[in-house]
Amino acid sequence: MPGAAFLACDWGTTNLRAWVVGGDGEVLASRDFELGVSKLAPGEAEQRFQSEVRPALNAEGLPAILCGMIGSNLGWRAIDYLPCPASLDDLHRGLVTVADGVRIAPGLRGDGIAGAPDVMRGEETQVFGWLAQDPARLFGRYVLCHPGTHAKWILIEDGRIVRFITAMTGELFAVLKKHSVLRSDAPADDEAAFDNGLEAAEDGRALAARLFTARSRVVAGGEPAEDTPSYLSGLLIGAEVASLPELLCGALDQPVVLLGDETLCRWYERALMRRGLQSASYDGEAAALTALTALQLETRP
Amino acid sequence: MPGAAFLACDWGTTNLRAWVVGGDGEVLASRDFELGVSKLAPGEAEQRFQSEVRPALNAEGLPAILCGMIGSNLGWRAIDYLPCPASLDDLHRGLVTVADGVRIAPGLRGDGIAGAPDVMRGEETQVFGWLAQDPARLFGRYVLCHPGTHAKWILIEDGRIVRFITAMTGELFAVLKKHSVLRSDAPADDEAAFDNGLEAAEDGRALAARLFTARSRVVAGGEPAEDTPSYLSGLLIGAEVASLPELLCGALDQPVVLLGDETLCRWYERALMRRGLQSASYDGEAAALTALTALQLETRP
Repeated sequence: MPGAAFLACDWGTTNLRAWVVGGDGEVLASRDFELGVSKLAPGEAEQRFQSEVRPALNAEGLPAILCGMIGSNLGWRAIDYLPCPASLDDLHRGLVTVADGVRIAPGLRGDGIAGAPDVMRGEETQVFGWLAQDPARLFGRYVLCHPGTHAKWILIEDGRIVRFITAMTGELFAVLKKHSVLRSDAPADDEAAFDNGLEAAEDGRALAARLFTARSRVVAGGEPAEDTPSYLSGLLIGAEVASLPELLCGALDQPVVLLGDETLCRWYERALMRRGLQSASYDGEAAALTALTALQLETRP
Repeated sequence: MPGAAFLACDWGTTNLRAWVVGGDGEVLASRDFELGVSKLAPGEAEQRFQSEVRPALNAEGLPAILCGMIGSNLGWRAIDYLPCPASLDDLHRGLVTVADGVRIAPGLRGDGIAGAPDVMRGEETQVFGWLAQDPARLFGRYVLCHPGTHAKWILIEDGRIVRFITAMTGELFAVLKKHSVLRSDAPADDEAAFDNGLEAAEDGRALAARLFTARSRVVAGGEPAEDTPSYLSGLLIGAEVASLPELLCGALDQPVVLLGDETLCRWYERALMRRGLQSASYDGEAAALTALTALQLETRP
């Protein structure tokens, strides 16, 4: 592709977003591929990348920079995690070349809760991109939430990720909606039922008991069964929002930065607002591109 | 069958236990059937009962008394719940005749948590049987836990169930073990890993975050993946035990009565002991038989 300088990929568990970028950071083309690492057989990543992703974008021969679960044992190759605290500079130093002209950004590892470590792959790149989008963000303290299958609550100080905690909120929602007594094909889009779930989350304790209210409110409370996914979503997000900020950093005295999928961020905004917490939402993919571009063109602030 | 007075059935979601009982309450025969209501098509319960269960036990024509999920819309017919507080006498008055000589005991309904109702079908019969096994139990206050797919914590005062709360602990374990990133075919029988899960449960808050430690301890902590089911079991039971008693009745100043499956009760004993709480375990099926016999022969204390 004329003017193309490199290929950037945010390659996650379920999806691969790829951009062809010019020498000034301008996007020349972009495309989503149904090639999340959960759909790849062992050893398949490199072959599919070279034979499908590159040709589809006219990107044969371009340098490539990748982030996300592609750097795990399920992806191209397992890249060692970087320890926290970590900055975009650390991520740059940690880039690993996995094939000619192809580099993968490492994930992060930190101290989680209950004495266990915690890990992320991909969210760190989006976070560093969000920080790089405005130089003012490189100073001060931010509490950021990246909602999703494995939601991340991330404490940022002076441009570095210092701590984070993962909550399996999205995965709990998916497996309960599909495989449990709460299963339903209805969409989770009813605001009133979502709010009822938020209420039922209360302080977030005894989640296994609160989950049963999604069943009992239908069989004994006369609520419509088709509201169950919305209620369940409110319950799970409400329980997360009730406890994760405090676990991460004690009392929350500033707005939460929401970074990720637009629709999901909107539900989190609603849950936070219900608790009197302010938030502002930003697009995760745009942030990933900012970081990958900075890493490749070495234009880090 | 000579000397047989009636047929008693504890007919639950996954299993049906049936006993042929004599006029003095003696068990003449018993048998388990893989006929849990989750395996029945609508309307199938009566037909299978008459054509399979009765003949297998030579129990054609005997009066029959049933309890459990067979009294739900998934079973023979939906029987109205009794309100709490409720006693064995109330259960007797609430028996519903669903076919010639066949009666089903109703379940209970009470105020759960977060403003939602709570329900049970089958556990109440086991509880009343446990109470009837020793007349001294008909007075005083007991905190009883019935572990299982939907674990019940039950407050009993002077022979009546006054309040209860359900926790979906067993179902969470099953769906996460089978369908999530924590999936594993390994057995949940490692005591050390179970204890590590109990520790990680701490006060039971932020369960969705604690669950992720079952993953991160393997991918970043070097713990063996085959311990995951044991750790997950400890985490879920630990979180339940950390919060349910207090939600049910405030501070716990007496031993917990565990009623149910022997193996599962042993894991709960272990979890309670770790928190300095005493417990004593009793067989749930034996208790069901005691109650069904008392209901049928009208020998209630």
